[in-house]
Amino acid sequence: MQSMFAATLAALAAAPVFTADPLPSWNDTAPKKAIVTFVEKVTKAGGSDFVPPAERIAVFDNDGTLWAEQPIYFQAFFAMDRVKKLAPEHPEWKDKEPYASVLKGDMKGMAAAGEKGLVEMVFATHSGMTTDEFDKLVTDWIATAKHPQTGKLLTEMVYQPMLELLTYLRANGFKTFIVSGGGIEFMRPWAERVYGIPPEQVVGSSGELKFEMRDGKPVLVKLPKLNFVDDKEGKPVGILQHIGRRPIAAFGNSDGDLQMLQWTAAGDGARFCMYVHHTDAAREYAYDRESHIGQLDKGLDEAKAKGWTVADMKADWSKIYPSTK
Amino acid sequence: MQSMFAATLAALAAAPVFTADPLPSWNDTAPKKAIVTFVEKVTKAGGSDFVPPAERIAVFDNDGTLWAEQPIYFQAFFAMDRVKKLAPEHPEWKDKEPYASVLKGDMKGMAAAGEKGLVEMVFATHSGMTTDEFDKLVTDWIATAKHPQTGKLLTEMVYQPMLELLTYLRANGFKTFIVSGGGIEFMRPWAERVYGIPPEQVVGSSGELKFEMRDGKPVLVKLPKLNFVDDKEGKPVGILQHIGRRPIAAFGNSDGDLQMLQWTAAGDGARFCMYVHHTDAAREYAYDRESHIGQLDKGLDEAKAKGWTVADMKADWSKIYPSTK
Repeated sequence: MQSMFAATLAALAAAPVFTADPLPSWNDTAPKKAIVTFVEKVTKAGGSDFVPPAERIAVFDNDGTLWAEQPIYFQAFFAMDRVKKLAPEHPEWKDKEPYASVLKGDMKGMAAAGEKGLVEMVFATHSGMTTDEFDKLVTDWIATAKHPQTGKLLTEMVYQPMLELLTYLRANGFKTFIVSGGGIEFMRPWAERVYGIPPEQVVGSSGELKFEMRDGKPVLVKLPKLNFVDDKEGKPVGILQHIGRRPIAAFGNSDGDLQMLQWTAAGDGARFCMYVHHTDAAREYAYDRESHIGQLDKGLDEAKAKGWTVADMKADWSKIYPSTK
Repeated sequence: MQSMFAATLAALAAAPVFTADPLPSWNDTAPKKAIVTFVEKVTKAGGSDFVPPAERIAVFDNDGTLWAEQPIYFQAFFAMDRVKKLAPEHPEWKDKEPYASVLKGDMKGMAAAGEKGLVEMVFATHSGMTTDEFDKLVTDWIATAKHPQTGKLLTEMVYQPMLELLTYLRANGFKTFIVSGGGIEFMRPWAERVYGIPPEQVVGSSGELKFEMRDGKPVLVKLPKLNFVDDKEGKPVGILQHIGRRPIAAFGNSDGDLQMLQWTAAGDGARFCMYVHHTDAAREYAYDRESHIGQLDKGLDEAKAKGWTVADMKADWSKIYPSTK
């Protein structure tokens, strides 16, 4: 009896505690295993790869990594809707690109205006108001803005596997940050509700701001002048300026994220770098080396060379969006 | 018996739970009462002034608010020590101000070089290395750097009442941030150890950074070019860019903090703005309207006009530094 009792105790001690799968939308393929192995390693107290909670910084690109980015970055839809809204005050836009094309609903014509024209359009639609006013514009817009192809709310086009990953990392003591080329003030109004990421953990591109007193009340006015581009070489700079310590995990989907992954990988100790690879034309989009939006070319080569994880959306994700199967 | 039992229960229920005073270095004067009243108000679930934990953002100036700033900002001591260290590589400094005065130990001569000369000296001593190298320089330096007048380590010249306040706010669900005119990369290496404030919650002035690959390893190089001045009108801008939501409590000590306090006060709901007033020449320093460092003139008038809290160091603090009585 004594030995049977001991054997039972030993069996109980050895039995794994039942826990629900924290990543149910990830297939049981290599990326999921790599994620779980990494998280278990850095959280194992006394282990050689243990990282104190304060240093568990994980950074995520947004467009194409946390939500979709085709056929154009979703912030461009916002700019286009603003152009339509503001058109009555700007009769000159009828004959000026890219505004004229936007007003005609001609996206190819809009794109033909080139980067300079598009940047000018972003400034025209993202400045001249206070930060509080802009926050309200974005909040109101995103509440109903739908995707022209899927008909879904844009905020429904977030990736369920990545939402699970964010939650899983936070449950393991990670602080999750967005580090995106998108506008910092465009993302903050909804990032907390949609991703559980508070404004102070959102890093992005920005325009200059000016402090002013209006009727005795201080306001910050958005100027039509570039402050910071949080893309490519800018991402490590944005990380250093905002976060001030090197992430131990980084997630991206394009060459614009390459320097962020390189910067993350170059730190001491355990590191995790992952690319989301858009391979699923049926459930989402398939694009990489040749795409104008979210080009993944050099990054794909470097991921292979360095042994970074590449999540193949078609093969590794059982679900894309929260509302679909 | 029944009624006596009920009376006992009622008395027990009404008795306050004994808790140690969270602010023992604050005298029982108006500022301490105002702080406690504010914190109890915004944390009382169901109360009309309740603020959800995620929105409990408190911002603190550093120089003169969390640690001393006389006879000059402590970062200037760092720059001066760097000048002495680098002098052998810069023979021309012997005849060039403000370097010549620094090398002679003539602080008045150094100050005579004016702001332009001092800014140039900061760039000369704070750039040309990687961010990792600079982090190590500051970490090594601050471990032993002592104040020329008190002989204390600079990190011992933090204000005990403010350390208690930081801890008290965090215990009540606040997120505490530094928002300082000082260099962001100068504060981060020690702010977590000394104040319990992690790097990602430090906002400050900064120079530009450049991403480079050196021997296949990515580095960020500090350039001798100004990126952002986190002072006066810059403080609300820094708050918006880094934190992305308006603080509900702000603490400063000079006119350089006025716009930060105004910006904080202008939000909806309960707000708390406080100035630390340097009134104690015996235990610390006494200065305000006429001081070149930490001038508090307009701010003092506005605090009175707006009913902001003013902590009089002599009258309201029973202790200044952690190591003194």
